[in-house]
Amino acid sequence: VNEAAILAARRNKKVIEMAEFGEAVEKIIAGPERKSRVITDEEKQIIAHHEAGHALVMKMMTESDPVHKVSIIARGMAGGYTMTIPEEDHQLRYRKKFKADLVGLLGGRAAEEIVFKDITTGASNDLERATKLARAMVTQYGMSEKLGPLTFGEKDELIFLGREISEQRNYSEEVARQIDSEVRRLIDEAYQTAKRILTTNRAKLTEIAERLVREETIDATAFNSMFA
Amino acid sequence: VNEAAILAARRNKKVIEMAEFGEAVEKIIAGPERKSRVITDEEKQIIAHHEAGHALVMKMMTESDPVHKVSIIARGMAGGYTMTIPEEDHQLRYRKKFKADLVGLLGGRAAEEIVFKDITTGASNDLERATKLARAMVTQYGMSEKLGPLTFGEKDELIFLGREISEQRNYSEEVARQIDSEVRRLIDEAYQTAKRILTTNRAKLTEIAERLVREETIDATAFNSMFA
Amino acid sequence: VNEAAILAARRNKKVIEMAEFGEAVEKIIAGPERKSRVITDEEKQIIAHHEAGHALVMKMMTESDPVHKVSIIARGMAGGYTMTIPEEDHQLRYRKKFKADLVGLLGGRAAEEIVFKDITTGASNDLERATKLARAMVTQYGMSEKLGPLTFGEKDELIFLGREISEQRNYSEEVARQIDSEVRRLIDEAYQTAKRILTTNRAKLTEIAERLVREETIDATAFNSMFA
Amino acid sequence: VNEAAILAARRNKKVIEMAEFGEAVEKIIAGPERKSRVITDEEKQIIAHHEAGHALVMKMMTESDPVHKVSIIARGMAGGYTMTIPEEDHQLRYRKKFKADLVGLLGGRAAEEIVFKDITTGASNDLERATKLARAMVTQYGMSEKLGPLTFGEKDELIFLGREISEQRNYSEEVARQIDSEVRRLIDEAYQTAKRILTTNRAKLTEIAERLVREETIDATAFNSMFA
Amino acid sequence: VNEAAILAARRNKKVIEMAEFGEAVEKIIAGPERKSRVITDEEKQIIAHHEAGHALVMKMMTESDPVHKVSIIARGMAGGYTMTIPEEDHQLRYRKKFKADLVGLLGGRAAEEIVFKDITTGASNDLERATKLARAMVTQYGMSEKLGPLTFGEKDELIFLGREISEQRNYSEEVARQIDSEVRRLIDEAYQTAKRILTTNRAKLTEIAERLVREETIDATAFNSMFA
Amino acid sequence: VNEAAILAARRNKKVIEMAEFGEAVEKIIAGPERKSRVITDEEKQIIAHHEAGHALVMKMMTESDPVHKVSIIARGMAGGYTMTIPEEDHQLRYRKKFKADLVGLLGGRAAEEIVFKDITTGASNDLERATKLARAMVTQYGMSEKLGPLTFGEKDELIFLGREISEQRNYSEEVARQIDSEVRRLIDEAYQTAKRILTTNRAKLTEIAERLVREETIDATAFNSMFA
Repeated sequence: VNEAAILAARRNKKVIEMAEFGEAVEKIIAGPERKSRVITDEEKQIIAHHEAGHALVMKMMTESDPVHKVSIIARGMAGGYTMTIPEEDHQLRYRKKFKADLVGLLGGRAAEEIVFKDITTGASNDLERATKLARAMVTQYGMSEKLGPLTFGEKDELIFLGREISEQRNYSEEVARQIDSEVRRLIDEAYQTAKRILTTNRAKLTEIAERLVREETIDATAFNSMFA
Repeated sequence: VNEAAILAARRNKKVIEMAEFGEAVEKIIAGPERKSRVITDEEKQIIAHHEAGHALVMKMMTESDPVHKVSIIARGMAGGYTMTIPEEDHQLRYRKKFKADLVGLLGGRAAEEIVFKDITTGASNDLERATKLARAMVTQYGMSEKLGPLTFGEKDELIFLGREISEQRNYSEEVARQIDSEVRRLIDEAYQTAKRILTTNRAKLTEIAERLVREETIDATAFNSMFA
Repeated sequence: VNEAAILAARRNKKVIEMAEFGEAVEKIIAGPERKSRVITDEEKQIIAHHEAGHALVMKMMTESDPVHKVSIIARGMAGGYTMTIPEEDHQLRYRKKFKADLVGLLGGRAAEEIVFKDITTGASNDLERATKLARAMVTQYGMSEKLGPLTFGEKDELIFLGREISEQRNYSEEVARQIDSEVRRLIDEAYQTAKRILTTNRAKLTEIAERLVREETIDATAFNSMFA
Repeated sequence: VNEAAILAARRNKKVIEMAEFGEAVEKIIAGPERKSRVITDEEKQIIAHHEAGHALVMKMMTESDPVHKVSIIARGMAGGYTMTIPEEDHQLRYRKKFKADLVGLLGGRAAEEIVFKDITTGASNDLERATKLARAMVTQYGMSEKLGPLTFGEKDELIFLGREISEQRNYSEEVARQIDSEVRRLIDEAYQTAKRILTTNRAKLTEIAERLVREETIDATAFNSMFA
Repeated sequence: VNEAAILAARRNKKVIEMAEFGEAVEKIIAGPERKSRVITDEEKQIIAHHEAGHALVMKMMTESDPVHKVSIIARGMAGGYTMTIPEEDHQLRYRKKFKADLVGLLGGRAAEEIVFKDITTGASNDLERATKLARAMVTQYGMSEKLGPLTFGEKDELIFLGREISEQRNYSEEVARQIDSEVRRLIDEAYQTAKRILTTNRAKLTEIAERLVREETIDATAFNSMFA
Repeated sequence: VNEAAILAARRNKKVIEMAEFGEAVEKIIAGPERKSRVITDEEKQIIAHHEAGHALVMKMMTESDPVHKVSIIARGMAGGYTMTIPEEDHQLRYRKKFKADLVGLLGGRAAEEIVFKDITTGASNDLERATKLARAMVTQYGMSEKLGPLTFGEKDELIFLGREISEQRNYSEEVARQIDSEVRRLIDEAYQTAKRILTTNRAKLTEIAERLVREETIDATAFNSMFA
């Protein structure tokens, strides 16, 4: 609300309208827009295909949250972004939902590989989030059959000189190796799924990317109409 | 008593009645009720079967404490809860009692797997408690024949900058591997037992879950009458 | 002396008598009596057999210190206690004395296993002390032929933020594994000895335990007369 | 700008000209010039070939940024320097660009080995930067097919008593070994490429080095004209 | 000098005589005498043979420093002591001198094993010193052919919150294992040598021990006359 | 200059002459002379051969810096010293120069072994410096073909409570083992070279050592004339 009020004030509006609220939510999630930043045409192509990869994969996975907006306008550290809004506010999450999330996170890197035959640093944050999620599935949620319904590592809430130390290892090298192996398997399966979806829907991937290059942003209605 | 007095005061009662005491105990154990929280029908189904799983397994294990109440009203971080009250206040606990506790803790996850063919994040806290208990059986209580009547790790009472460091490893990787393996075995056996009980009593599981969806809470009398 | 003076003062005595001294020594060693604690009959049986196990094993081992008192009255954290008084104040201790101490410490757990075919948490402190003693034999006193006349680990006298860090590992995983293996062997041998003694003297074990249930405490004279 | 203003002031100029700006940028990147330092003729030969190695390799790799200046005037800790200016300010970097950077970084050491049949300490900083880059490719950017599209290690932003702890290992020895192996492979491949380029263009290497010994510095125009 | 002055003052002497100096030196090295301590006859026998073991072994090793005094009067933590005085103040020490020192340090434990067929805690400090010396030979003085003329571990002079952290490991598990193995070999060889000397000179061992039991202390002259 | 001024002042000189400067440089490098220290004839022999070993090996290695002075006068912790002065102030060092430095550092220990058939603690500091140099060659300068042109370990400039922590391990056990193995190989090769040189020039070794015993110090001119 605060962010929305600030935006409205900047625009000399007396009331805060939905436009301000929507922008405020996006700003908080993805950082402020950085319109001034100059990117090369080649970068624009990469970012457009990267975001198109995320969006297309999410659209194709029945378990994914619906795509709310796709954009190649830089926000914070990211060159572009794909926003989803969960249909309902869930407290519980199924393993298959997490698996779909992994596929969605890896859709950007998969698109780069398929389209440009090379990969960039653009997926770094996606890979970090995917790795953390896969790790949590194995160590916190007992979702790996190989590791079983156990938890691994002691989470510390300790603020040690201003930092939260997140995990204490309390298991053997053998189990550490099994955890690494399962995390790797989850990521590999998700990445293969993402590549298969994008290869199968290669024309649609190009279509979304080209529209992004032209229009910079595609909202939910426009995005869904491309699949009508 | 303090919590009960507060509740009585809120209700303009002159004396603290048993109703207040009962609520106060539950509140302290499971956190305050969160009636306002909206959950989807699907989540209600999951939570109902999860709690029914706990309760049914505990009922079937002769070593378990008797079930006092089953509920799908959220408390604290939990979506629902199953309360037990030990018949007597024991200072000593048998290994078979601990094994029954493990089965009870894993009953919720087992029910999810059997009924929905998928598993959720809802069991995370159960898995953490089960892992800790199994670990304590092996490392503190000498209850693993494979590891023998020894203790492993030095417990520290140290409060280091506000945190209790709970364990110092003072054993080899080889022993760490054996401990992991035994903890895994205890959890696996308990999980198989939970699944076997629930599969054998599948109709009763459905009955309890459906009643929970309808009535939200089942007390000890009502619960036991279902097995009459 | 201080404790004895306090006890005498509480009883309005002008002089501190031996009764006060005896009680004071026990209180310091085992914590104050907790007569008010209610235990179930089943727990009484377990504790009685557990303490009878300690006492009987110690009586049968020629190297053990003589039993001074056996009791099932709770003191501090312990459900009961078996006190010994060394005949002379030794500065040096033989390996065979340490081995007898291990057998004595494990007598309680051994009795539980033999009599109740299950084991409880009651032996937790015994196991911790036995493990520490066996570890010291191997790492501080060079009493393991497999590890040889060396010491392992650097003992630190450091008080780090109020805690004594007791050991720094300065050896390889290979040696850590050998130490674990030797500690395990010492404990296993002592436990087998304890079980053999108790099995051979099963009737005497029952007799001591039953008398403990009846009389709660057996002093040295009464205890020794049972073996006359 | 600040540095340029200082330089202009020292020269009693009223305006800051491009000469000042260019020098300021170089000073910030490579440290102030150290003209007073005396080096032996042998060292001059080594440094000249070392920098010629960097520059020639970068020229030959299509993915490298264009060479802006090559110099054997000492700056900061370095005996000489080779500056590149990226044609455009990229936010995303391709794996093939990183691979070309590795080859460029190792060009100096490769030249030493080829020309002098021995290697010096002069490449120490190059090797450190190449190792860090190869490590980041594997652990942060998911650019190793052997390790997959995952990230490894938790980066800490923590300033602990004035220092940034850069990485917490959260993986097994097995993965640590694979990371080391992949980092090694990336470096080895780049080093082979650098040596192959320099061997193939040995005459050009000598030509650049000799010109550096004569003129100390070669700017972009002069450098490129050598390949006309 | 200070200690000697205190002793002289206590005895109302005007000058500090050699008697005071000698006592002062011993007190500083071995702690004050504890004549009041009561030990059993059995302990007296053990301590006498333990010290006789040290003294006899040192006498028989040509590389050992000459024995200055043997005593079974307790000093500090030790039940007895054997003092040697190096003939000259050496700055350099040969490997063979260190090897002789190891044999001397282990002479006490060896005597216990040979005479009493069991071992006691009395050798704990000897074993610790022997282990440290053997470790220093391997890691600081490069005296192990298997490990070579290298040093291992970084010694820290750091006083961290009042404690000196003595060693940082900077080598692999493989080297740690080799160091342990070499330290073990040095100790084992020294212990075998000590046992061989004592077995060969068993009568002399008994003679020294019996004289210690009778006279409590044997000085250098008396000790050497036993070998005339 | 400061040290030289102090020396001149002590000698009631008005100007600081070269004698003072020379002494000041030596004092800073090797610590003040300790003429008062008494050493045995045997130690004098060892130190003389040890220093002769250093000097002779350095003379024979074409890559070594020229010997400036050899002395058996104790300075600081060292029993004697061999000083070299590099012909020119090099910023870059070749691998072959480092290898020669390793041989020079190990010349003292090698002489002890050849002449006395035993080794002493006198080489401890040489071994530490040789190990550090060999380690730096492998981990900082990429001079091991087995480990490749990489750097290993993160150097920290951190002053943690008054101490510099010099290295953070950021590699696997496998690499740690390879580093240890390469460091060992470099030291072993250098030690073999030192022994070969000294064995081949055994008469010269004796000649230098005997002159050191007679004259205590040999300067560059005298030293080089021995090889005329």
